[in-house]
Amino acid sequence: MSAPTNIACVKYWGKRSIALNTPINSSVSVTLDQADLKAVTTVTVSKTFKKDRLWLNGVEEDVTKSKRFIACVTGVKNLATEKLDSSGEVLVDKSEWKDYGVHVSSMNTFPTAAGLASSAAGYAALVACLAEVFGAIETYPGELSTIARQGSGSACRSLYGGFVAWRMGSDNDTGADSLAEQVFDENHWPKLKAIILVVSDEKKDTSSTEGMSTSVSTSKLLGYRAKEVVEGRMRGIEKAYGEKDFESFGMITMQDSNQFHATCLDTYPPIFYMNDISKSIIKLIHTYNKWKGKIAAAYTFDAGPNAVIYHLEEEGEELLALMLMYFPDDKFLGSLVGSEYVNNEEEWRKAKAWVLDEELLRMCDAKGRSRGVGGDVKKIYVTRSGPGPIVLSDEHSLLDKETGENCYTKPADGNGVALGVFGIGLIGFGLMALSGAGIGLIGNAGGGSKK
Amino acid sequence: MSAPTNIACVKYWGKRSIALNTPINSSVSVTLDQADLKAVTTVTVSKTFKKDRLWLNGVEEDVTKSKRFIACVTGVKNLATEKLDSSGEVLVDKSEWKDYGVHVSSMNTFPTAAGLASSAAGYAALVACLAEVFGAIETYPGELSTIARQGSGSACRSLYGGFVAWRMGSDNDTGADSLAEQVFDENHWPKLKAIILVVSDEKKDTSSTEGMSTSVSTSKLLGYRAKEVVEGRMRGIEKAYGEKDFESFGMITMQDSNQFHATCLDTYPPIFYMNDISKSIIKLIHTYNKWKGKIAAAYTFDAGPNAVIYHLEEEGEELLALMLMYFPDDKFLGSLVGSEYVNNEEEWRKAKAWVLDEELLRMCDAKGRSRGVGGDVKKIYVTRSGPGPIVLSDEHSLLDKETGENCYTKPADGNGVALGVFGIGLIGFGLMALSGAGIGLIGNAGGGSKK
Repeated sequence: MSAPTNIACVKYWGKRSIALNTPINSSVSVTLDQADLKAVTTVTVSKTFKKDRLWLNGVEEDVTKSKRFIACVTGVKNLATEKLDSSGEVLVDKSEWKDYGVHVSSMNTFPTAAGLASSAAGYAALVACLAEVFGAIETYPGELSTIARQGSGSACRSLYGGFVAWRMGSDNDTGADSLAEQVFDENHWPKLKAIILVVSDEKKDTSSTEGMSTSVSTSKLLGYRAKEVVEGRMRGIEKAYGEKDFESFGMITMQDSNQFHATCLDTYPPIFYMNDISKSIIKLIHTYNKWKGKIAAAYTFDAGPNAVIYHLEEEGEELLALMLMYFPDDKFLGSLVGSEYVNNEEEWRKAKAWVLDEELLRMCDAKGRSRGVGGDVKKIYVTRSGPGPIVLSDEHSLLDKETGENCYTKPADGNGVALGVFGIGLIGFGLMALSGAGIGLIGNAGGGSKK
Repeated sequence: MSAPTNIACVKYWGKRSIALNTPINSSVSVTLDQADLKAVTTVTVSKTFKKDRLWLNGVEEDVTKSKRFIACVTGVKNLATEKLDSSGEVLVDKSEWKDYGVHVSSMNTFPTAAGLASSAAGYAALVACLAEVFGAIETYPGELSTIARQGSGSACRSLYGGFVAWRMGSDNDTGADSLAEQVFDENHWPKLKAIILVVSDEKKDTSSTEGMSTSVSTSKLLGYRAKEVVEGRMRGIEKAYGEKDFESFGMITMQDSNQFHATCLDTYPPIFYMNDISKSIIKLIHTYNKWKGKIAAAYTFDAGPNAVIYHLEEEGEELLALMLMYFPDDKFLGSLVGSEYVNNEEEWRKAKAWVLDEELLRMCDAKGRSRGVGGDVKKIYVTRSGPGPIVLSDEHSLLDKETGENCYTKPADGNGVALGVFGIGLIGFGLMALSGAGIGLIGNAGGGSKK
């Protein structure tokens, strides 16, 4: 299956319980379109698998050390139902699942651990995939998000499309009421778009888990934020999204991004996720809004330097043109075709043709950013809101159909990340139909066959 | 006179009353030694001066627009006493001062408006100078700091040497109880030293006054900080300074610097004073402390990217050597003598000879900062705590003795700032003894002569 990434407008930062992975405040995010960014995961189960195994971006990880992975597998197995074939015959009985080993291969079509919610997409794909395999999707939909949450907090929000809230809940014994909820689906506000500027594809200095833990124990501002600020923002932004009120939506989004990074800075030792390039993007957006005379674009930064800029459709070409003016590719004037730098060639062409207002450029120049200096932004995605996890066709797989071993290799493209190398033909698939080898088979498209 | 700069350990950010220039929280700072950084101001008064005039770094300013300047001149004039000569004869009667015009010339020996508290030193020098001229120093010592505060809030702390608190006060009608107080004098903790890294000598993007105003109206975290966090830190750091407990002093200093910048980031639009170079200094200091196994160095950043690193004498050479390793001058290996980059040639020589521990270097390298890459830091000062304003000899003056016109020109040294160009011979002086021209003369050394 594939699962989307999501970018929070009201941020999650800080765990109430590390054991349960419950948050100190609610959060809400936009699920992004998987046409542009996604995690692709293949899960295969078999009685012949001696142990659970996991490959991330083609490299095997030691799952015995990963509490998160184990929590997700165990959690979904506990919800498993019996598996029937199309004629209603029992393929696998509920009681048999415990004897099945699990193989997982997962990859991202975008930089891992660089603040683009790769773990959210990854764990959402894992849990959705496991649920599909173990027949847990329809039976217990609510509980899935509490399991995904144990993989990576924000993963629970990637289980739904559109505008998704993660309600913090109040049950501190089980965390059962700390779950994701779709506030509006992906068709509610079609004019809402996003531009993502990948500032860095390097792995971040401080992991979210480590950072949150230090923040909770050292930042006085974080506790205050969680208790006194977030709930009002949640109400405000859900109302704004419902009414398609971009100015209110954008204002809260920018303020909450800044406040999240402020609490990181108030942490001891301080945590920095944004860098000087991030700051220059922030300045450009405020300058653009000033020139527009309204909030027409709103940035947000997760735990990394990359910017996500929400905007309405009508500003899309102009904003992309502005970004290309101040953050061109370093090889932009050379042989590159636009789609190597911007994921959508048509949008790139339109933006290139756009003539930016002279006064706007003068105002942006005054903020100290130079035009035409490339190399600070490595990739631009233009995207929008999209649906939750999708079951993919089994044409291609990240696990070998015969052996259940990983068959995906991360391309060595010089940048160290797989950007845009997965075209339409190669999307991986959800559950693998293993044939031969006397294994219980779990099919993807309409169930597998029992041998 | 000359007046010192001061660098706060618990920061002032936010005005309770803009009219009175009272703060939303108390603050405390170390007054730095004027041997290294100072503002030098000359004040001359005369009945022949048609209007008040002010030159800053050699350039005349329009004082009719400067509420702050007017508040200081008016404030000190209101405290004026009669001026007597050495024989007790009245040179100027109290009632006559209103007819005197004031000429002021002021310069800094360090970058202006780049977060090194240039306005604090400047307004402290102005008010101390005016008080000397108008005979207001001994009569009303307490009120002086309430006047300096109206020039620039933190200027009140530069009226004293050593460790100085600005008590926020509670009188919202007059602000009379919002004043500076010396907590410990400059001789209390002689082992406490400071290294200043001048990261940028450019004027900052957002002035402190403008920034504070926006922060107070938009940052929810700032209000919480002022109400719930600062008082505890004030008590803690005053105790630590009293007990010469560097670890507690350093911890609070770093935490409060970070929290101040966090509230700037929580402002809408956000304010950034630190840049990526500032951040790499922070990382180096935390790495150094980790290697030391204790807090042996503590950074703090005012409203600009420059770092002030407090430390004890025993770490001085090692810390300076570490800074020179990761922040060498871009011409450091060339023809420069050390004192052009580090203000103290002897300290520079000792640091150059220091052999840094290999494990420390390895740990610092791992934080991503490259050794031997110059150009990020423009000047390093090694300094310590020093006294309050000093009356200087009248050998040199920033105002012409005959005409009362400015006679100081800022040297065009290519960097746009006067760094270290004022040697021991050229220190300006406090009040000018004008001779000739039938003017009421106010002498500096033992009083002037009346014609």
